[in-house]
Amino acid sequence: MPTTRAQCEQYDADDPLAFFREEFVLPEGVTYLDGNSLGALPRGAAARVAEMVETEWGQGLIRSWNDAGWFDKPSAVGERIAPLIGAEAGEVVVCDSTSVNLFKVFTAALGLRPDRKVVVSEASSFPTDLYMMEGATGLLDGYQRRLIAEGGLTVEQAIDEDVAVVVLSHVDYRTGRLHDMAAITELAHRHGALVVWDLCHTAGALPVRLGACRADFAVGCTYKYLNGGPGSPAFLYAAARHQDAAEQPLSGWHGHADPFAFTTDYRPADGITRFRCSTPHLLSYAPLEASLDVWERVDLGLLRAKSRRMTDLFIELVEQECAGFGLEIASPRAADDRGSQVAVRHADGYPVMRALIDRGVIGDFRAPDLMRFGFTPLYVRYVDVWDAVQVLREVLSTEAWRDARHAGRSRVT
Amino acid sequence: MPTTRAQCEQYDADDPLAFFREEFVLPEGVTYLDGNSLGALPRGAAARVAEMVETEWGQGLIRSWNDAGWFDKPSAVGERIAPLIGAEAGEVVVCDSTSVNLFKVFTAALGLRPDRKVVVSEASSFPTDLYMMEGATGLLDGYQRRLIAEGGLTVEQAIDEDVAVVVLSHVDYRTGRLHDMAAITELAHRHGALVVWDLCHTAGALPVRLGACRADFAVGCTYKYLNGGPGSPAFLYAAARHQDAAEQPLSGWHGHADPFAFTTDYRPADGITRFRCSTPHLLSYAPLEASLDVWERVDLGLLRAKSRRMTDLFIELVEQECAGFGLEIASPRAADDRGSQVAVRHADGYPVMRALIDRGVIGDFRAPDLMRFGFTPLYVRYVDVWDAVQVLREVLSTEAWRDARHAGRSRVT
Repeated sequence: MPTTRAQCEQYDADDPLAFFREEFVLPEGVTYLDGNSLGALPRGAAARVAEMVETEWGQGLIRSWNDAGWFDKPSAVGERIAPLIGAEAGEVVVCDSTSVNLFKVFTAALGLRPDRKVVVSEASSFPTDLYMMEGATGLLDGYQRRLIAEGGLTVEQAIDEDVAVVVLSHVDYRTGRLHDMAAITELAHRHGALVVWDLCHTAGALPVRLGACRADFAVGCTYKYLNGGPGSPAFLYAAARHQDAAEQPLSGWHGHADPFAFTTDYRPADGITRFRCSTPHLLSYAPLEASLDVWERVDLGLLRAKSRRMTDLFIELVEQECAGFGLEIASPRAADDRGSQVAVRHADGYPVMRALIDRGVIGDFRAPDLMRFGFTPLYVRYVDVWDAVQVLREVLSTEAWRDARHAGRSRVT
Repeated sequence: MPTTRAQCEQYDADDPLAFFREEFVLPEGVTYLDGNSLGALPRGAAARVAEMVETEWGQGLIRSWNDAGWFDKPSAVGERIAPLIGAEAGEVVVCDSTSVNLFKVFTAALGLRPDRKVVVSEASSFPTDLYMMEGATGLLDGYQRRLIAEGGLTVEQAIDEDVAVVVLSHVDYRTGRLHDMAAITELAHRHGALVVWDLCHTAGALPVRLGACRADFAVGCTYKYLNGGPGSPAFLYAAARHQDAAEQPLSGWHGHADPFAFTTDYRPADGITRFRCSTPHLLSYAPLEASLDVWERVDLGLLRAKSRRMTDLFIELVEQECAGFGLEIASPRAADDRGSQVAVRHADGYPVMRALIDRGVIGDFRAPDLMRFGFTPLYVRYVDVWDAVQVLREVLSTEAWRDARHAGRSRVT
């Protein structure tokens, strides 16, 4: 029996997370399937931002560094992220960008394996990870990069006794492929290597168990599934066992053991604080704080269950409703092996996505031929999955996308 | 004839910048002399922030990367900062923090002088500059640091043919001492060295002529005199002549020549864009944009004239009204030699400042004995200078500060 819209409505009626949709502002007439790139606006964010601007800044002025907790914001928000990624208290700090934080932990990890000169990553990594690794090793002597790639080296082949650090995306930004964090971390450790996990497409999409997996370091952004707003600060995780030996070169005064002593020499703070650099971009924390008020009430097991069911449903409906239009599912077929997004190949994927967006179904596109659809369990409904596939079928069957072939390229991540 | 409050009122009545005060929100009962640490809230900021949150993010969602100009924000805001610091179009970008930007330009500058292994700075630098230099040279081989210090090396002694890069604060964060940018830059160039200027306490306090001084690189924050809000993004200047040879190691995807090609290898963009790293902290730009709407209308010559007159007046009034209480002016006496702040030493400076703050006169304190008072010409009045000194006299003459000795330490910059 094919799935019907009525069944999707029933799924929504039975969805224990359905009420969270009310916590978000969503534009009229839009089916938003790009929360894996920029999450939607939490309803409480505008008021929290206004409070920071008008009360903390406008009235409190400089006094808010103490009185409004500004100085401790990176650790205070870090403590709230920790349970979402399976970290303990004192292992997470929120500051700077994912790229900058990757530079910190990658360089720190290299310092913990000074006698090894090979670094490993994947050709399919989000490129900024590769670029930041290149920037760091470019300052140092004699490092060699080994890339895992389809048709090339496997993870098992790439990691041996020469490897200092492995940097991997837990969920692939294009296909949504999910790595086995526990197994790969164990493999790396068996060879004496350390692993940095990029959780950009993981945090808020599925439960992560950094501690249970014995992860070494991790970074990730807060503006995708975590709904922190455009350019909200990134998180950085360093396992407690590594912190006191780890040295990171972006050694600004907020990472100093005694920042207000204003000494001429750097002495890193104990613990996770040494991974801070300088004055936090405070206003960019405010919406994230409102979003974390929502996240505190989310059961991550239910979140993952809904995510799996929505992505399964999307794949099923694409095959049921859009057969014969040249689509190919590029994401893993087994829900166990993917995050909360589905990528679909089409030779004219770019204009097809343009046509979808023109009709209110917002996903995005990655060259050369991938359409990405993200399913954020807190505010996407099963009927949205149904409706998106219907619009996709309409665009393909009428060839409406032919008009969109020459429109400007979508620039988003 | 001693100066009177009536005269200060007359100065305000004659002040051609007086009307700018209306552009700022200032709390009732506060004389705010800490705009050199965190500028006041521009009246237009809250609306601009709300627009970015509610319209650009809430309604535009991912589409705002193109439609609202998010992707180009660092260069668009950089173009607006350029005239305030004497830079040309294409020489300024706004992103990340001052510390992170210092790391970029310092490391890039070292790369332009590969055969030299000495770096020069001042013991009195704001410490994060020293710490970031230490972080960068710690990754590299064989660098030696030379510090200019009172009673030690002079600028002239420190800079010779071994020096690769000199990092100096244009205005000293404690005393307000102003360096001669043209003369020192020329001295360094004569010896083949490059100079990085830290403009944190300069931008928005006085006109800067980076181009005319043949400056190489500069960084600075936007949340002090520029009123961009707590943790607003920092600016980075690279002289056009250096850009194409300069390589900086925080080589994230927003600095790539073709960021949406998603290649595995880094290729820097032409021009100033290569100094960007990654996704900008967008919300933190919004108040700065509102502030720059004000700055566009400011005559920097008038600004400097008022700044000199206010700081002169403050010094004069402190000596006139507070003689015999153990105060010592720690800033240069000649207005030509200082920025827009005055530092005053007192053995019990910390509790004195606490007592001032309790009475609504907000400055700040730097160990061991410096009280700092900042004079922001856009919203501080001459009568504020008068009133602040009267409160200072009251605190000192009644020894009211004795009660404040054990209060918590103010943690601000």
